[in-house]
Amino acid sequence: MTGMEFTAWFGKIELDEDGEIRDCELFDKNPEKLAELVVELHDNVQAVPLKRADLREAALESGFVDLDEDYDILLRDVCIRAAKSQISQTDTDDSRIIQAVEALDDIDKNVNELSERLFEWYGRYFPELDMTGEELAVFVSAYGSRANVPDDHELSQKASQSMGAELLFSDEELLRAFAKNICSLYDTRRYIENYINTSMGSVAPNLCNITGASLGARLMSMAGSLQKLAAFPSSTVQVIGANRALFKHLRSKAPSPKHGIIFNNPAIKNAPWWQRGKLARALASKISLAARTDFYSGELDPSIKEALEKKLESIRQANPNPPERKPEDKPQGKGGKGGKRKYRGKGKGKNTGGKR
Amino acid sequence: MTGMEFTAWFGKIELDEDGEIRDCELFDKNPEKLAELVVELHDNVQAVPLKRADLREAALESGFVDLDEDYDILLRDVCIRAAKSQISQTDTDDSRIIQAVEALDDIDKNVNELSERLFEWYGRYFPELDMTGEELAVFVSAYGSRANVPDDHELSQKASQSMGAELLFSDEELLRAFAKNICSLYDTRRYIENYINTSMGSVAPNLCNITGASLGARLMSMAGSLQKLAAFPSSTVQVIGANRALFKHLRSKAPSPKHGIIFNNPAIKNAPWWQRGKLARALASKISLAARTDFYSGELDPSIKEALEKKLESIRQANPNPPERKPEDKPQGKGGKGGKRKYRGKGKGKNTGGKR
Repeated sequence: MTGMEFTAWFGKIELDEDGEIRDCELFDKNPEKLAELVVELHDNVQAVPLKRADLREAALESGFVDLDEDYDILLRDVCIRAAKSQISQTDTDDSRIIQAVEALDDIDKNVNELSERLFEWYGRYFPELDMTGEELAVFVSAYGSRANVPDDHELSQKASQSMGAELLFSDEELLRAFAKNICSLYDTRRYIENYINTSMGSVAPNLCNITGASLGARLMSMAGSLQKLAAFPSSTVQVIGANRALFKHLRSKAPSPKHGIIFNNPAIKNAPWWQRGKLARALASKISLAARTDFYSGELDPSIKEALEKKLESIRQANPNPPERKPEDKPQGKGGKGGKRKYRGKGKGKNTGGKR
Repeated sequence: MTGMEFTAWFGKIELDEDGEIRDCELFDKNPEKLAELVVELHDNVQAVPLKRADLREAALESGFVDLDEDYDILLRDVCIRAAKSQISQTDTDDSRIIQAVEALDDIDKNVNELSERLFEWYGRYFPELDMTGEELAVFVSAYGSRANVPDDHELSQKASQSMGAELLFSDEELLRAFAKNICSLYDTRRYIENYINTSMGSVAPNLCNITGASLGARLMSMAGSLQKLAAFPSSTVQVIGANRALFKHLRSKAPSPKHGIIFNNPAIKNAPWWQRGKLARALASKISLAARTDFYSGELDPSIKEALEKKLESIRQANPNPPERKPEDKPQGKGGKGGKRKYRGKGKGKNTGGKR
């Protein structure tokens, strides 16, 4: 066995056959620079030879440090710096979009609950008002009591003849403050949505081009990052977000899901049921391609979208009519599902059984 | 059988023995006034004699209306007015407080979720910041990026040495808008809380005196109204809010719950476990008394509070030490619970079995 070379965090070390240090090139004793090297080393993991597993001894022998304690102090310092620099590097463009998408979902959920509360609360005072959500919040924060609706407002007649109770001043102020909160949450929601739309164009132009900003961001969020989304096979992309249906399929004889959140793409949502499975498969494959192009090159490639359009069109033309439901299809391998005549169940069954 | 008199919605009618109209006193044909009478009649429900069950015929016969259609039109008008006036009367003082309490709960829940999101989101940029909830929201909306923390701020050192990522301007604006929403939700929360505190003092002074505004309002909210709370036996008041434990007790051999939401009263919360059941029972009985006084008289009676204080004190003095856990206690009627040595489970069992 001849000698071998390896890189420890404090320098490059060459060993002879017996595991003794033949030569060593020590690094600068600057913790900042050493930390950078540690992060680099971590990315190119290198085996430390068994004969020299004790790096501490090697460091002392090579003269990098004089004392045991010095080694401890320096190593601690370097490791903390390395960890901090790795933490600060987690803030990538796609992770920012993912945070924004998750915040958007949180706002959506919470603003809906608060709107429902406002609807119930204000409904006691103006039950004839046919508004919900943001419209209602804007109305309440603008007028408060229905007595304040001006005469030339389209709702003035409804307001004056309402069977609702009188709204006392103290309650009116409360309701207005509450409605204003809801309005500003809706504003923030729009703000975050704009941010996602803008960012997606630069972070994942191809994905954005194929799916639209919102769906693309949501796919990244569910995958965990753009890198992970790019690594998924397109069959996984097709069913992201359909976890329940997928595991039901894997566990029992339920039909496999045709689409996860990519269902929200209008090409699938607006398609007749018998085309959806095929369209979803085509779309998922192009989403995979787009995510990979985004992650590895980052430049917009319009040919992906063109190819997708062509593929979708050819699927639509090849399947203009709903497939016939042959009675002999039912018992074949569908287990207990044959008896069910539910629209979606049948549709899924068809697509699962047929050529996908 | 002699004649009889009854009141229909259109007038007072006197019948002879054969069910023929002997005399009648018709009301004014004013729909507004008739509606008021209908609401009144509804409160003093009166049996219509069987022989004259058809009021329409009686109205035609007595000359109140000339045509069938007139009867229909007038009755419809009167009923709608009556229903509207009843709807507008549902807005009582206690129902307003209940709405406010429910809105408070909704805000609490939603503001917590949004705060968690802010914590996670902002934590990427300033992980060393040891704040949550409103404190964090105020900090973020005030400074945004940690680079904006002024030098004389107590956190300036932490901010400059943070391992968090750089916060880009576009993200900073987003986070600040989000944090501002959370701040204003907290403001509204305080506003509603003040409102409840103020209103409870006038609507239910005794209840407020015994339990505090927040707990009193919550009791009313869970009962449905002050009237319903006043109608509950005090044993029900004691376990309001402990539904799961109560039904588990009724269904199986689980110990009965000692307290529902009245546990939040400091007298019970801060008491040692072996006094809690007894204290809860005393408190619940006074809550019942207070709710009844509030509903039927509405005036503050300080003697309720005094009696409660005395009772609580005597319970505390009579039970200074935790009861001994005799081994022979275990098998007596406690079913499978004897083996459990869990602190709360034991405490409950003791109090349930003992004098309550």
